[in-house]
Amino acid sequence: MAEAVVTVDGWSALHDTRQFDWTSWKSISEDERNKAIQEFEELIKQWETVEENKEGSHSIFKVVGNKADLMFIFLRETMDELEEIKRAINKSVLGDFLIPAYSYVSIIEMTMHDPMKAGEDRELSPYVKERLRPIMPKWEHACFYPMARRREPEANWFAIEKEERTKLLYEHGMTGRKYAGKVKEIITGSIGLDEWEWGVTLFAHDPLQFKKIVYEMRFDEVTTKYAEFGDFIMGNYLAPDELANYLAL
Amino acid sequence: MAEAVVTVDGWSALHDTRQFDWTSWKSISEDERNKAIQEFEELIKQWETVEENKEGSHSIFKVVGNKADLMFIFLRETMDELEEIKRAINKSVLGDFLIPAYSYVSIIEMTMHDPMKAGEDRELSPYVKERLRPIMPKWEHACFYPMARRREPEANWFAIEKEERTKLLYEHGMTGRKYAGKVKEIITGSIGLDEWEWGVTLFAHDPLQFKKIVYEMRFDEVTTKYAEFGDFIMGNYLAPDELANYLAL
Amino acid sequence: MAEAVVTVDGWSALHDTRQFDWTSWKSISEDERNKAIQEFEELIKQWETVEENKEGSHSIFKVVGNKADLMFIFLRETMDELEEIKRAINKSVLGDFLIPAYSYVSIIEMTMHDPMKAGEDRELSPYVKERLRPIMPKWEHACFYPMARRREPEANWFAIEKEERTKLLYEHGMTGRKYAGKVKEIITGSIGLDEWEWGVTLFAHDPLQFKKIVYEMRFDEVTTKYAEFGDFIMGNYLAPDELANYLAL
Amino acid sequence: MAEAVVTVDGWSALHDTRQFDWTSWKSISEDERNKAIQEFEELIKQWETVEENKEGSHSIFKVVGNKADLMFIFLRETMDELEEIKRAINKSVLGDFLIPAYSYVSIIEMTMHDPMKAGEDRELSPYVKERLRPIMPKWEHACFYPMARRREPEANWFAIEKEERTKLLYEHGMTGRKYAGKVKEIITGSIGLDEWEWGVTLFAHDPLQFKKIVYEMRFDEVTTKYAEFGDFIMGNYLAPDELANYLAL
Amino acid sequence: MAEAVVTVDGWSALHDTRQFDWTSWKSISEDERNKAIQEFEELIKQWETVEENKEGSHSIFKVVGNKADLMFIFLRETMDELEEIKRAINKSVLGDFLIPAYSYVSIIEMTMHDPMKAGEDRELSPYVKERLRPIMPKWEHACFYPMARRREPEANWFAIEKEERTKLLYEHGMTGRKYAGKVKEIITGSIGLDEWEWGVTLFAHDPLQFKKIVYEMRFDEVTTKYAEFGDFIMGNYLAPDELANYLAL
Repeated sequence: MAEAVVTVDGWSALHDTRQFDWTSWKSISEDERNKAIQEFEELIKQWETVEENKEGSHSIFKVVGNKADLMFIFLRETMDELEEIKRAINKSVLGDFLIPAYSYVSIIEMTMHDPMKAGEDRELSPYVKERLRPIMPKWEHACFYPMARRREPEANWFAIEKEERTKLLYEHGMTGRKYAGKVKEIITGSIGLDEWEWGVTLFAHDPLQFKKIVYEMRFDEVTTKYAEFGDFIMGNYLAPDELANYLAL
Repeated sequence: MAEAVVTVDGWSALHDTRQFDWTSWKSISEDERNKAIQEFEELIKQWETVEENKEGSHSIFKVVGNKADLMFIFLRETMDELEEIKRAINKSVLGDFLIPAYSYVSIIEMTMHDPMKAGEDRELSPYVKERLRPIMPKWEHACFYPMARRREPEANWFAIEKEERTKLLYEHGMTGRKYAGKVKEIITGSIGLDEWEWGVTLFAHDPLQFKKIVYEMRFDEVTTKYAEFGDFIMGNYLAPDELANYLAL
Repeated sequence: MAEAVVTVDGWSALHDTRQFDWTSWKSISEDERNKAIQEFEELIKQWETVEENKEGSHSIFKVVGNKADLMFIFLRETMDELEEIKRAINKSVLGDFLIPAYSYVSIIEMTMHDPMKAGEDRELSPYVKERLRPIMPKWEHACFYPMARRREPEANWFAIEKEERTKLLYEHGMTGRKYAGKVKEIITGSIGLDEWEWGVTLFAHDPLQFKKIVYEMRFDEVTTKYAEFGDFIMGNYLAPDELANYLAL
Repeated sequence: MAEAVVTVDGWSALHDTRQFDWTSWKSISEDERNKAIQEFEELIKQWETVEENKEGSHSIFKVVGNKADLMFIFLRETMDELEEIKRAINKSVLGDFLIPAYSYVSIIEMTMHDPMKAGEDRELSPYVKERLRPIMPKWEHACFYPMARRREPEANWFAIEKEERTKLLYEHGMTGRKYAGKVKEIITGSIGLDEWEWGVTLFAHDPLQFKKIVYEMRFDEVTTKYAEFGDFIMGNYLAPDELANYLAL
Repeated sequence: MAEAVVTVDGWSALHDTRQFDWTSWKSISEDERNKAIQEFEELIKQWETVEENKEGSHSIFKVVGNKADLMFIFLRETMDELEEIKRAINKSVLGDFLIPAYSYVSIIEMTMHDPMKAGEDRELSPYVKERLRPIMPKWEHACFYPMARRREPEANWFAIEKEERTKLLYEHGMTGRKYAGKVKEIITGSIGLDEWEWGVTLFAHDPLQFKKIVYEMRFDEVTTKYAEFGDFIMGNYLAPDELANYLAL
């Protein structure tokens, strides 16, 4: 029996993508639309206060394909807050036009496999604190995908030795480090919480970097042999003051 | 041919998750909403009487992601009662806003594999009685997931010897015991009743414990080699007196 | 090339599950609801006449989970009759509230593998006649699931010898015989007709028997090695005179 | 690298299944319904003229289960005609009630594997011409299913020698010949056009023959080892003069 | 660890397929329909200006089956432009009738594997420039499909040597070259951006060529052993001046 690795855990995360119901949106009056936007901007302001107080973080993205229109990402200390945020969105007038498309529930984690800071007293270091409770960068693009490790007879991640897992993840981390300054990532664990085992949220100024890093990592042994991927969702950052324009007819 | 293990069986279980149709909910009058809430609170009171009489148990959870809004769990002596409860919900006014998202039908079971009480006269012991007909703890969070055992040429749970299965489940139980006081579980069997073979319902004060226990168990040989998982649904406990507030606009 | 086994075939079967649209049902007047019920009771009476004449059989079940509300099972001599029945349901007023959820088309069959009657002149015996054109028992519960046999390199049902298949099915039948009086079954073939290869319809007084028989059979070599299962649908018998009460608001 | 086999190709094919929206159909006036039927009968007459001119063929089937209500099959020289037919159906009044359920796009093909006519100058023979541009028989039942050949390490159709493929398909054809007069088939290729690699359309007077032929063929090595199947759709022939009755309330 | 191959990347691509809601389209007045068409023709003109300036390219196709009615393909320098185009479509009046069916987000790429131009200074050559930022041919038919390379123990594309991959892709390219003049293709990479790893867009005068080239390529070792395919979508070119006729009732 292989040994489990200790993780340290941080904020809970909700990725919530929605289709926007443009047809219904057009059917209400301009006055109603303006009120709906103002109400939602108030919600956003509340979230911004939370972020300024470093008690959470959030970002909104304009999804490119037609599988969704908006992706909300929320980071909070508790699952209660995340459920309340979802409910507040749904109770708002704008919520009537935000049709659920996909969501993912997880908790930010770091494992002792982490190649960059092994050996430190991770729980207490400011570096770890910031990675466990991060303010998301307001970069131009984000990409989210869930993933799992294989448990097949010939490639069983959970059956190989801890040292092997550590080595493979160290190599994987080295690939990631090549993209320092170009790609930031948040790793969340979702075992026991949602459909896959982990979630990966990437941020970049140039979406081509998502393709480059995930492609290069596909050649890392840990991915080549042991990774299964869910669907990828890519979006362009929506600044708070951009909402009215996004929704303008 | 491997030998089947005798199970003892208890209450039937219905896990029933729903999307809440907030748009339609906003479209009816406050008076109608209040009446709908009162009517549903009456239903809940009936369920509470059943629970007080130890003739069943129920709990309602606020689901975090957007795959569902509410998860109802009902335990009853018969499948008839479970179908009647579902129908009563659907016939209620609030039922018009509770759109089916997912459900699972199963029966609470204990197997002789159980590491904690092997050797006892299980059918009759108060411990077994309580586990087969349990009042669910009103803890802050619950997680449900269905699962199956593999029947692959290289990993066939149903083809290995009973002793091997017992040993693997004993180890698995030992992992579970580390979480005593932090995680409670109800195991239900669904072979012949629903899509997977078993259902697992976990309760915790802290949802991080769901991630920790299911992660650690993933390294148990019985999981590493033989387990397949369905989707995980996680929710926050909704107290009966919280319903009106949950639904308030 | 392994040899195919001769089957004898009987009535065609339609399993038809529906969601009931309670919201719309509530929106019509009580008078309209009563008329819809009376019209549907007339349909049921026509089906009962067919059953009395032994020209077919039917049963209606209240499904427990939220994947469906009602499961109709119809057995008829021809596929034409089955399509006409579906259409008659859809044309009825009640049909407007019976939203298609799932269906399965198949034909009752017996194979020479059958362990109970091998050697007899099956086509002509009253036992076979009754099994090929059975009146369904009006027992309290039914369960339906479709299944297929594996065609994998290491477990290929259609590539093993006929004698081996016969032996495995004989053992399987022995497991089934233990449940005589507790579980009745109808086997239908759907190769060329619907998504899986066979359909199994079980009837029981106690739904726990579905779990017990299907669990025990999972250890039969024919299941352990060669079976793939579709989704299981379980329901409680709806007596004809129970319809009005089922639909009462 | 195994050698590809030359195919000769004929008409393009569209299989188009629809749910019929009976609830909306009931909501319009009898006069509107009659006009809708008359308009659609005009469409059918145009298709019949095409068929009389041997410039295409069409058939409509009443689907038995609830996955669809009607299956249209169209054969035409070009994909343009097929898209225009779909659009004409959708533009018609009846089209408002014909909700898309499933469709398949393919092209009729014959390969040199064909056991019956190998050696002839296929392109020019009247036999081949008729098989590539066939008028569909107006038999009582049809069945459609798409399929693919496996490309697994241990069973890779596209990696075995051409001679082996020819031999296996010859045997397969021999099984088919046993059903001469009982089952007619049209083989279409869909590689590059739709989700699977081939489509099979069977016609029979008795739907039991679909079950018999596909079951018997499952024991052919080419199926046992190399075939993957999509969903099967079975329907009963709808004669043109039957439409009004089919739709009558 | 196998070595990744350098790619050069060009325009971003959005494939966006839609169902057309004919029922709602019929429910608005002819005047409203005409205005909606005119407004959309203005959108198309803007896209044509972009194409004339060689700052992007677009095409619209009439999809043959009922899985979609229209497929839009857009090529642009940035993901921002692609999201804005999608939003502009949705904000237009015609957008109310264009129900999302499927979409795919990717970036045009060339790899050093490319058999035709290896050795050249690819980034700068006019040939490469044109392939990375191509004006799509206005040929009569297009076909899109996403694909991935296998990462199985016995067939792991990302684990074999770069030389082997280059050799296999060279052979694959040779098959493609046979179709010069008959089929044009655009390869896009979607790792990190959408569900599969690559997207293939083919153009042809005769849709039979899609079937021929993809069939022949299925025998290339790179496909036989390493390819997984998503769904294929085939459509007929819609010329800009054809839109009004397409939508005419």
